[in-house]
Amino acid sequence: MNEFDLIARLTAALPTNSTVIVGSGDDCAVLDIGLPDRLLLFKTDAVVGGVHFDDAAPAEKVGHKALGRCLSDIAAMAGTPTAALITLALPQTFDPAFIEGIYKGINALARRYEVAIAGGETTTNPERILISIALIGFVPRGKALLRSGAKAGDAIFVTGDLGGSLRGKHLDFEPRLAEAQWLAKSFPIHSMLDISDGLAGDLRHILKASQAGAELLSSAIPISRQARLTARAESSGKPPLLAALTDGEDFELLFTLSSRDAVPLVDAWKKKFPKVRLSCIGKITAGEGIRIRDQQGVRPLTVHGYAHFS
Amino acid sequence: MNEFDLIARLTAALPTNSTVIVGSGDDCAVLDIGLPDRLLLFKTDAVVGGVHFDDAAPAEKVGHKALGRCLSDIAAMAGTPTAALITLALPQTFDPAFIEGIYKGINALARRYEVAIAGGETTTNPERILISIALIGFVPRGKALLRSGAKAGDAIFVTGDLGGSLRGKHLDFEPRLAEAQWLAKSFPIHSMLDISDGLAGDLRHILKASQAGAELLSSAIPISRQARLTARAESSGKPPLLAALTDGEDFELLFTLSSRDAVPLVDAWKKKFPKVRLSCIGKITAGEGIRIRDQQGVRPLTVHGYAHFS
Repeated sequence: MNEFDLIARLTAALPTNSTVIVGSGDDCAVLDIGLPDRLLLFKTDAVVGGVHFDDAAPAEKVGHKALGRCLSDIAAMAGTPTAALITLALPQTFDPAFIEGIYKGINALARRYEVAIAGGETTTNPERILISIALIGFVPRGKALLRSGAKAGDAIFVTGDLGGSLRGKHLDFEPRLAEAQWLAKSFPIHSMLDISDGLAGDLRHILKASQAGAELLSSAIPISRQARLTARAESSGKPPLLAALTDGEDFELLFTLSSRDAVPLVDAWKKKFPKVRLSCIGKITAGEGIRIRDQQGVRPLTVHGYAHFS
Repeated sequence: MNEFDLIARLTAALPTNSTVIVGSGDDCAVLDIGLPDRLLLFKTDAVVGGVHFDDAAPAEKVGHKALGRCLSDIAAMAGTPTAALITLALPQTFDPAFIEGIYKGINALARRYEVAIAGGETTTNPERILISIALIGFVPRGKALLRSGAKAGDAIFVTGDLGGSLRGKHLDFEPRLAEAQWLAKSFPIHSMLDISDGLAGDLRHILKASQAGAELLSSAIPISRQARLTARAESSGKPPLLAALTDGEDFELLFTLSSRDAVPLVDAWKKKFPKVRLSCIGKITAGEGIRIRDQQGVRPLTVHGYAHFS
């Protein structure tokens, strides 16, 4: 049983109540807690030593990544983060300087976005460090961007460059909070998420939630320099396009909006975020699944983003 | 460096913002998010296989414990729980039936208290299962019961029986939500927490936060049947009184209020919760530390509750 099958089984009949607007299955839970103008966003995310970072990773970057992943999920809903709790599971023996470094990385990123670290706990995990972060944030009512709003004909956009994140970006990416809030304010975005499992896998999440298909233009997919370098350095490595489609941990925004808004968006984006690449990589279709167009024609894309359990 | 020293160092200068009323150091974080009548409570808690439950523990009870611990912390603030996220860190190979059992236990307890399970995530922890739960809840403004309000002369009360929890209670305790909410509504409680580290250790948390001392009456401490059975069965085991003072995971309420309210409280409690024992175990003093009175006189109590890292 892989991760996605297990999640599907576990989340089939979860207890709910009148506060829940969006439960499991999107980047954050969305709760109506009675604020007239805002909804609450609620998210947890964990990083594990040897799984999400290795022994060579600097402690501050590990902390940055741990909080950054959660912030990226708040960004994916076009929200603003407010407060976090840190759960630190540690072996019996640990290097206090490494733990302080983790907190230094968390705290620096938290301060940049005015996020309070409102507490947490330490517990025991004998073999390795695990850092789980719980985060709350807010989004104006009616402005939360979900995975489920994509419509046939929508243009598909992605920020930044994709693939090869494990060469370094996964430890020092900047969550796209400013970009996402600006997008939600400036254009009628239909669907959005942040890319954590890889472009192909995460696009499938939008398609499944929206009951739609997609056609990607191979030449339009923004391949990172790191993906190209990896392909050149490792003869057995992924071709760069495949890396851009399937490598995890890009933490870029993937979103769709009506094709008539595509050109105005590109113009406005260039003025607002001149240093961040924005690429139109294809369109939403009425069919199922992902197809990819290149010089040889159109063919189905069968590669998946990676699953943790396979 | 033990757990408490590490926490003290890490929490010395955490980022904060205007929402934070109570940060680290109490049972839950308390946040003012702009609701006119209520404050938000925010809590995370993790249980780890081989640390908080062993291989013989039934899956449903493991799930019950994982959520119950968080609910007990919401109870300790006299709050009402609203929604939880479940983080499940699993080895590469796991028994899906065990995981479903964990969820069954979580879901049953959540339904009893109308708590929504609003999502979560699965991740990898190669050697053992770790379940971290993040919970939000609410408390009426001005009604959150903190650790810091104890005053010299207060009577000290505890619910239930203490010690020997590892014989079974740690897996199927009922969080004292109803009792805590009734207490906060009915009496001017000065300070409260839930006992997770052991009576002595947790009382020290109240004393430190309140800058006070305490005198306990040895014969008034409610010793559980399990603590007595363990002492009888294991010749090297703790004497029952020591077990009641230092065993962890009782998940009972420990609170203080003005001594003039003690008798009315006991009378009202007997009518409202006839099946739950309530014990007045001593008084808050102007000094420092805990002293204990028995037939031989009064002596300082130097035993601690257990620390995870020692």
